[in-house]
Amino acid sequence: MEQYKVVIDTLGSDKGPEAIILGAALALKQFPELFVTLVGPQALIDEKILEHGIDVTRLKVIPAEETIVNTDHAYEGIMTKTEASLTKAFKEVAKDEENYVGMMTAGNSGAILMGSFRYLRTNSFTRPCMAAIMPNAADGFTCLVDTGATIDCTVSQLHSFAKLGSELMSKLYGIESPRIGLLSNGAEPTKGNALGKETFPVLAADSTLNFVGNIEGNRSLSGDCDVLVCDGFAGNQVLKNTEGTAAKIIKDIVVLSKTRNEPKYMEVVDYLMKRYDLGALGGGLVLGVRKLVIKARGNSDERAIVSIARMLINHAKGGAFYTKKDLK
Amino acid sequence: MEQYKVVIDTLGSDKGPEAIILGAALALKQFPELFVTLVGPQALIDEKILEHGIDVTRLKVIPAEETIVNTDHAYEGIMTKTEASLTKAFKEVAKDEENYVGMMTAGNSGAILMGSFRYLRTNSFTRPCMAAIMPNAADGFTCLVDTGATIDCTVSQLHSFAKLGSELMSKLYGIESPRIGLLSNGAEPTKGNALGKETFPVLAADSTLNFVGNIEGNRSLSGDCDVLVCDGFAGNQVLKNTEGTAAKIIKDIVVLSKTRNEPKYMEVVDYLMKRYDLGALGGGLVLGVRKLVIKARGNSDERAIVSIARMLINHAKGGAFYTKKDLK
Repeated sequence: MEQYKVVIDTLGSDKGPEAIILGAALALKQFPELFVTLVGPQALIDEKILEHGIDVTRLKVIPAEETIVNTDHAYEGIMTKTEASLTKAFKEVAKDEENYVGMMTAGNSGAILMGSFRYLRTNSFTRPCMAAIMPNAADGFTCLVDTGATIDCTVSQLHSFAKLGSELMSKLYGIESPRIGLLSNGAEPTKGNALGKETFPVLAADSTLNFVGNIEGNRSLSGDCDVLVCDGFAGNQVLKNTEGTAAKIIKDIVVLSKTRNEPKYMEVVDYLMKRYDLGALGGGLVLGVRKLVIKARGNSDERAIVSIARMLINHAKGGAFYTKKDLK
Repeated sequence: MEQYKVVIDTLGSDKGPEAIILGAALALKQFPELFVTLVGPQALIDEKILEHGIDVTRLKVIPAEETIVNTDHAYEGIMTKTEASLTKAFKEVAKDEENYVGMMTAGNSGAILMGSFRYLRTNSFTRPCMAAIMPNAADGFTCLVDTGATIDCTVSQLHSFAKLGSELMSKLYGIESPRIGLLSNGAEPTKGNALGKETFPVLAADSTLNFVGNIEGNRSLSGDCDVLVCDGFAGNQVLKNTEGTAAKIIKDIVVLSKTRNEPKYMEVVDYLMKRYDLGALGGGLVLGVRKLVIKARGNSDERAIVSIARMLINHAKGGAFYTKKDLK
């Protein structure tokens, strides 16, 4: 059986390293082809190896106690905190001789971006960006890029996001010419903020891209495009507003079920919880680098870690991160 | 009985003037204290007066055939299309002697903003903005401002939005010191795009505002603040993403109901359709002007017009636009 080696940073998650280590333990049980390098507090990892009965023949541990936290400056964090788990994880995954398929971390987004650029950049010196693969209303998937790696963007960055997103969706889902949309405040070509208005003609002029024009906010996940391009601030809103609205509606149905004493409504809740649990579906994906780097959400639980392990393995096998089947 | 006079622009809606006129007819039937001035095509209005049996003793008609369309330049539209229904509606509502409570239009947002400034500006020359009152997860309402009137904003504009939103929520819902949040990509004070980072200290320094800090996208409608401040591009995303996600989830439940052959699930659909039909709840609200101007959504149907007529009357009576009761 082929081996798939991944690096997992156990620090930087809101739920503490315990949830990440538990996730790694579950992933090792579920995927016999998986090999894990855990980076984090040695004593805790040792304790959990015993507690969860982790198969140590498929485990390597790199001790690290320090965390790059959310309030750390991203660039300084990666450059100066050389003992931090995230820095050590990047150094490890970058080792050619180890032949890792990728890494997973729930750490500081800015530091992930900086680390990706520092340790995993391509020869073209592309600035990495962060993407998310989201289920859309047309029963397919839309790649949202950027989701928050670069908050204030330039036109050439958005152009680069479009190319990276297009490449990814071709590779993952076999889409020959992925449709690229530009997030805007209306569908007409005249709509957009200053950045969008400047970006529109650049995307339209690139004959290697299948640019389908502006996409209005209410259609961002309608399936009208395969790649939705926007700056990291707007992308963050799309990602988190979708999550927040879904959570709000699920809560509404729970209340309704109680108020009307209709336990059957809870079946709808169960269905939506699965379908809209974007946390469990995995996290952000760094594009434009030599290895697959996946950022788990800060509040990721062990299920998210298992899901990301599956994404890493699937990607290494040349297939989709996840498919419709994973949503059922 | 006190009279409440409103101006209704019948042109500029995606559904054509027929839906607006029908809405006006229904509103006149429902609210005996309402007086309507319809601005639009005389022949069509005459025909509909007969068809819907409109009470002409509470109706005035101002003929207008021309529309300021979405592709018109907002400023030029208002300045040069003097015969357009929107321009005529503004001229009418601005007449002090007529004592209107406000106006409603489904026209071009930019032109509404320009017309509001030209015909209804206050002595302080405040630049008007567009707000939406949205139901939040804490069973209250959040005022989102700006929702798309000013796509690229300055710090002083965001500061002005905060003050106008605060004033509105005090007046409408009797909130003594409305909590002001700044939409950001994280809750920490260090988060934000360039505009947000510059705006944060300005809002924090204004002792007349109850500034509660950055609000992350997944909590924009959680009820953590009474007024959510952002530029028009981001606000447009919040508004439309919420709508799009709700529509997507409702569609999911319809499909689930059919697939599992569970008609009971459709009761949940009916409930959500009401609660998240932001179209029917009314539209955008121009703040910072002498009269209440409400922009109906471009795809508003007759129910939206009735709802807006109610908002105008309620506001003139000194109360809330709509309350929890309207959501049931």
